[in-house]
Amino acid sequence: MAGSSFGTIFKITTWGESHGKGLGVVVDGCPAGLPLDENDIQKFLNRRKPGQSKFTTPRKEDDAVEILSGVFEGKTTGTPISLVVYNQNQKSKDYSEIASYYRPGHADYTFDQKYGFRDYRGGGRSSGRETIGRVAAGAIAVKILNQLGITFLTYTRSIGPISISSQNFDAAQINENPLYMPDADAAENAENYLNACIAEQNSSGGVVECIIQGVPAGLGDPVFEKLNANLAKAVMSIGAVKGFEIGDGFDVAKATGKNNNDAFRIGADGRPVKTTNHAGGILGGMSDGSDIILRAAIKPTPSIAAPQQTVNKDGEEIDVSIKGRHDPIIVPRAVVVVESMAAVTLVDALFTNMSARMDSLEMFYQH
Amino acid sequence: MAGSSFGTIFKITTWGESHGKGLGVVVDGCPAGLPLDENDIQKFLNRRKPGQSKFTTPRKEDDAVEILSGVFEGKTTGTPISLVVYNQNQKSKDYSEIASYYRPGHADYTFDQKYGFRDYRGGGRSSGRETIGRVAAGAIAVKILNQLGITFLTYTRSIGPISISSQNFDAAQINENPLYMPDADAAENAENYLNACIAEQNSSGGVVECIIQGVPAGLGDPVFEKLNANLAKAVMSIGAVKGFEIGDGFDVAKATGKNNNDAFRIGADGRPVKTTNHAGGILGGMSDGSDIILRAAIKPTPSIAAPQQTVNKDGEEIDVSIKGRHDPIIVPRAVVVVESMAAVTLVDALFTNMSARMDSLEMFYQH
Amino acid sequence: MAGSSFGTIFKITTWGESHGKGLGVVVDGCPAGLPLDENDIQKFLNRRKPGQSKFTTPRKEDDAVEILSGVFEGKTTGTPISLVVYNQNQKSKDYSEIASYYRPGHADYTFDQKYGFRDYRGGGRSSGRETIGRVAAGAIAVKILNQLGITFLTYTRSIGPISISSQNFDAAQINENPLYMPDADAAENAENYLNACIAEQNSSGGVVECIIQGVPAGLGDPVFEKLNANLAKAVMSIGAVKGFEIGDGFDVAKATGKNNNDAFRIGADGRPVKTTNHAGGILGGMSDGSDIILRAAIKPTPSIAAPQQTVNKDGEEIDVSIKGRHDPIIVPRAVVVVESMAAVTLVDALFTNMSARMDSLEMFYQH
Amino acid sequence: MAGSSFGTIFKITTWGESHGKGLGVVVDGCPAGLPLDENDIQKFLNRRKPGQSKFTTPRKEDDAVEILSGVFEGKTTGTPISLVVYNQNQKSKDYSEIASYYRPGHADYTFDQKYGFRDYRGGGRSSGRETIGRVAAGAIAVKILNQLGITFLTYTRSIGPISISSQNFDAAQINENPLYMPDADAAENAENYLNACIAEQNSSGGVVECIIQGVPAGLGDPVFEKLNANLAKAVMSIGAVKGFEIGDGFDVAKATGKNNNDAFRIGADGRPVKTTNHAGGILGGMSDGSDIILRAAIKPTPSIAAPQQTVNKDGEEIDVSIKGRHDPIIVPRAVVVVESMAAVTLVDALFTNMSARMDSLEMFYQH
Repeated sequence: MAGSSFGTIFKITTWGESHGKGLGVVVDGCPAGLPLDENDIQKFLNRRKPGQSKFTTPRKEDDAVEILSGVFEGKTTGTPISLVVYNQNQKSKDYSEIASYYRPGHADYTFDQKYGFRDYRGGGRSSGRETIGRVAAGAIAVKILNQLGITFLTYTRSIGPISISSQNFDAAQINENPLYMPDADAAENAENYLNACIAEQNSSGGVVECIIQGVPAGLGDPVFEKLNANLAKAVMSIGAVKGFEIGDGFDVAKATGKNNNDAFRIGADGRPVKTTNHAGGILGGMSDGSDIILRAAIKPTPSIAAPQQTVNKDGEEIDVSIKGRHDPIIVPRAVVVVESMAAVTLVDALFTNMSARMDSLEMFYQH
Repeated sequence: MAGSSFGTIFKITTWGESHGKGLGVVVDGCPAGLPLDENDIQKFLNRRKPGQSKFTTPRKEDDAVEILSGVFEGKTTGTPISLVVYNQNQKSKDYSEIASYYRPGHADYTFDQKYGFRDYRGGGRSSGRETIGRVAAGAIAVKILNQLGITFLTYTRSIGPISISSQNFDAAQINENPLYMPDADAAENAENYLNACIAEQNSSGGVVECIIQGVPAGLGDPVFEKLNANLAKAVMSIGAVKGFEIGDGFDVAKATGKNNNDAFRIGADGRPVKTTNHAGGILGGMSDGSDIILRAAIKPTPSIAAPQQTVNKDGEEIDVSIKGRHDPIIVPRAVVVVESMAAVTLVDALFTNMSARMDSLEMFYQH
Repeated sequence: MAGSSFGTIFKITTWGESHGKGLGVVVDGCPAGLPLDENDIQKFLNRRKPGQSKFTTPRKEDDAVEILSGVFEGKTTGTPISLVVYNQNQKSKDYSEIASYYRPGHADYTFDQKYGFRDYRGGGRSSGRETIGRVAAGAIAVKILNQLGITFLTYTRSIGPISISSQNFDAAQINENPLYMPDADAAENAENYLNACIAEQNSSGGVVECIIQGVPAGLGDPVFEKLNANLAKAVMSIGAVKGFEIGDGFDVAKATGKNNNDAFRIGADGRPVKTTNHAGGILGGMSDGSDIILRAAIKPTPSIAAPQQTVNKDGEEIDVSIKGRHDPIIVPRAVVVVESMAAVTLVDALFTNMSARMDSLEMFYQH
Repeated sequence: MAGSSFGTIFKITTWGESHGKGLGVVVDGCPAGLPLDENDIQKFLNRRKPGQSKFTTPRKEDDAVEILSGVFEGKTTGTPISLVVYNQNQKSKDYSEIASYYRPGHADYTFDQKYGFRDYRGGGRSSGRETIGRVAAGAIAVKILNQLGITFLTYTRSIGPISISSQNFDAAQINENPLYMPDADAAENAENYLNACIAEQNSSGGVVECIIQGVPAGLGDPVFEKLNANLAKAVMSIGAVKGFEIGDGFDVAKATGKNNNDAFRIGADGRPVKTTNHAGGILGGMSDGSDIILRAAIKPTPSIAAPQQTVNKDGEEIDVSIKGRHDPIIVPRAVVVVESMAAVTLVDALFTNMSARMDSLEMFYQH
């Protein structure tokens, strides 16, 4: 079935494989009047580009985005915005061998099961390059949200056994190290850990954390269109994500009502405000006005050079070492992808919330 | 926006509040020819009924389900199946006071923010009784899946600090203790823990685990309709769920490629089979033929008798003790809800997968 | 597939068969704060009830509607509104014979082809009683629209060869004759025509026309969610409808640019206004601020007492006379159904239009 | 709202404006294993290209399509197929003047009302070039359907007052005249009629008819996803379409039950077959196995050189003559667009029908 669209009123449709002509996205339902140009989108795409650190693969990828429709005289027209990035440097020869077997941890086997065959070059549709469409769309979503006072802070929270610490937390550090960690010490430790992984032909997992600020209360719809449910779907649709949590997440399982409930007090502006935020900004499936805090658990890069057991298409058991260029860690590249998917979800929630009350409806249609 | 429907080809629409006339669900897209009667559904609803243990509230709820449409001569007709459970014993007087303030941890505040007012009786639309519709639909979904050889094993994995252990795992124990734990020792320890909570006017969180067996490979659609993404949305739409994970879940963050990848071997039937299942049965967003393993982290019941700080509608800070009948734990009641949502998701994935290949399409339409 | 829901943000889900326990609808996405009670809905349902004229069947149908959820203290809460009408007087014995053959012009044959069997009692899911859910939902939709200054004028435009005439047009006549024609002379001629049909054991078709006034400009979304396209789907989903048109409709085929274009002038309020309305209020798929004019062509009632040729389930050719109580005309009963479906479509279009522009988005979220 | 996608399981998303960089479509949900290349699509696009007759505008448009993704080694992979046609010859200077006023019969006014401004060059998103995406997708849909034995015959049925006649009907004539009429005499008369229109600086409307053969019975879902309802939405979403009908269409309004019902007989293969086809192949909203016959009424080209009254953006009443290159008739160009939209709808209906019965579900999942 058509699985490449996400969203209801604000809908993104991505396309493209790692070794096809290009990848892109159609962003449909963007309101008219948003200033937009290629730069806005390129900034986001650059955050996913490898080669920025020794820990992300030195494949040279020219990911220059082009806007093909939907923008006129510097502003969105309200019509679909088609964005494309042409593939420049995808050589097939590095991958020809893997056509014959199923790489462990990859979607080779399941693609074959579902479709009967697959584009084996690189990861095809499940390649990391598939995130290009998501991130290009995310750039637009974040721009819309920024105009409404909603901002994002997304970073690597942990790599393997190394986590950032709250005492050392410094948002300014995020762009100062190639691992996007807001904690210089943790970043250094993590780099050492990753060097060890590389030496062992191994890879590591980690956690991305995303904080969204300035979200108005009431976004999300009981019961199935809860904001946390849609964020979960959005983030878990990203390749390599095996877990998702909001607020205290899995820690709530060990908590009690007394230490998990967020109490209410009256804030400076005379309105209710929570004194803690164990809920992570979502209550009863709707945003409650405090920061939304979410996390994605990302598995280690499946492609490692170390020998692995698998089977080939002739039904033979074989050992393989996946040649080629591998990232020992996906997490830093996933930071902007998590942010993008969260942003796209939030825009849709903002739009679908507008008809919640008769009084706002009447006000809206009165001029 | 309309948030009470879930699914594309197999779609459920729930309705009802805890203190309205009743609750129910319309199940649309159920194939014709499935044997179905009220018993099939009642069995499932009974798994959520309180009063089965001292740890679930002794509110007397008669939840007899009635089939209003969609079944003829004992089989589904392919037309929408409307199910209803009438509310019998919902007295308002226990709740009248809470109309005036926002209970911490509840959706009172966010409902008010979104809609301007709320049905304050009980939890209204966010009451635990809202799960009646989900579970009734789940009964039908599980019956469809069983006919196709797909089965569920769902239980409480942990309560507070007490987890089941793999050595002691015994599925037969699930229905032998009121906490639905497949480990008699863990169940006993958990009961002691909960007694302590009750004594302190407190509540506890926990984790539900669900194993799905017999799932054919290839279900789910890259990139946004991945099976794990839809399962995440389905399960996280359940009230009180703050985290979701597949396979090794958040543990993947600390793993390495060598110990996280599932190797392939040739199985007894000459077909590829995985030697481990860190992936939890889903690879590249599609089922891979092994067991699907998922987990939901559930927060402690927000309604506790202990005093809490909050604010009332007049903007005053107050202390409240929420009177009435409270569960110290939601988790055992959530077991059948998690199973139901997973089942509904899986049915939809089975249906939407049927058009994946030209050859099966041609075979299907050839008689 | 699930085919019983209609709408995106404002979504209705109907259920029920003519001889099941009841029929109903879940209306999801209704804004909170709309005053609503059973009367509002009953008024609409009464417009479809037979027995109001000698031309609609004297089957006694008690169609008292009940609100089961979604309303509190006289206003909608924003949660799904479940409405039910219980079947009172549906005897199976009138229909038992038809289980064995396919009635011409009915869905018996296609239901069998699709599902393998069918509920043969009455029309089952394709019975005229299926419109109960649509009309109940339509009552709510019209109430929302009325609050925003949008009103409907729906009536029978023609029956067989007899059409209303513009010179004789008198809206007040609509409720003065059982055929709902806004032209007393035409109504009289049509009654004579129908008497002739009855005498011949025959039935007649006709056209329903619906005029919607006060619609703001800009509703509808290029390219596939055009307002006329959604109205077409909504109205053509009504049983027995074989044609749909907007404005001059099929007459445009014989027109020329000079006599079909609607010129613009400046209106009394200084804003553009059209001098004619060949377009029927929709231009480029969006409402243009003038009256929306649409028409539905309705075929003759298929169930007639006159002998017809058909086949039975054993593959034999037979002649049948369909016994029982038949309407010689569907059209008057369809008037409120067309209005209801148009209303439901328009509400959805109003809601989905709210996010069209950045400036209104910013204004909406600024308090 | 996002209005540029159509379909549920087989979904097309179009993008592009007449004077942007290009136009295209993403076709998502195409089954894997369908042989496909640019030729397949180009053939369809060529059927819409102007310049093939003196009656379609001599604008030189190079509409060479390119496949950017979704095809590997000559077959579809099941992943989204992105198609693009780059704009080559769209000069803005012909259109600069119209930025200042609202052309009668065009969407200028409604676009402004909805979005606050518009891309005034050519028709922008409502240009006839928008059909490029639809037709490219239609090529793929028709190819899928052909593989399943379903074929299309689409043509111009009438232009202005000139209709084809059944006695003279000759499908072979369709491609022998630039008006795509299956009747050489009617084509000649129509050409004369159009010459007269051109001389008067006028334009004409007409009707497109489409016959679909080989459709299996049972496609479409009561009540809102009826096949005729979805075909109506698909076809009425095409620009300039003001009416849609199935089978006898609006003629049913003047018919009686005796002459409108299609009787059943036993066919050569021992299965029921209808003796007539007033229903146009759809009964109760589902295909009945006979030919599906549908018609679209298309209004005259709004852009005519003759003077017209309108208003400009400064609120002044003015007279305009729309300069530039105009088609006196849209209908022949719309033939392939109607066929494409019908095909896309039919593919989706085929896919969504596969889960209608438990027995076929069980058969499907048994290997």
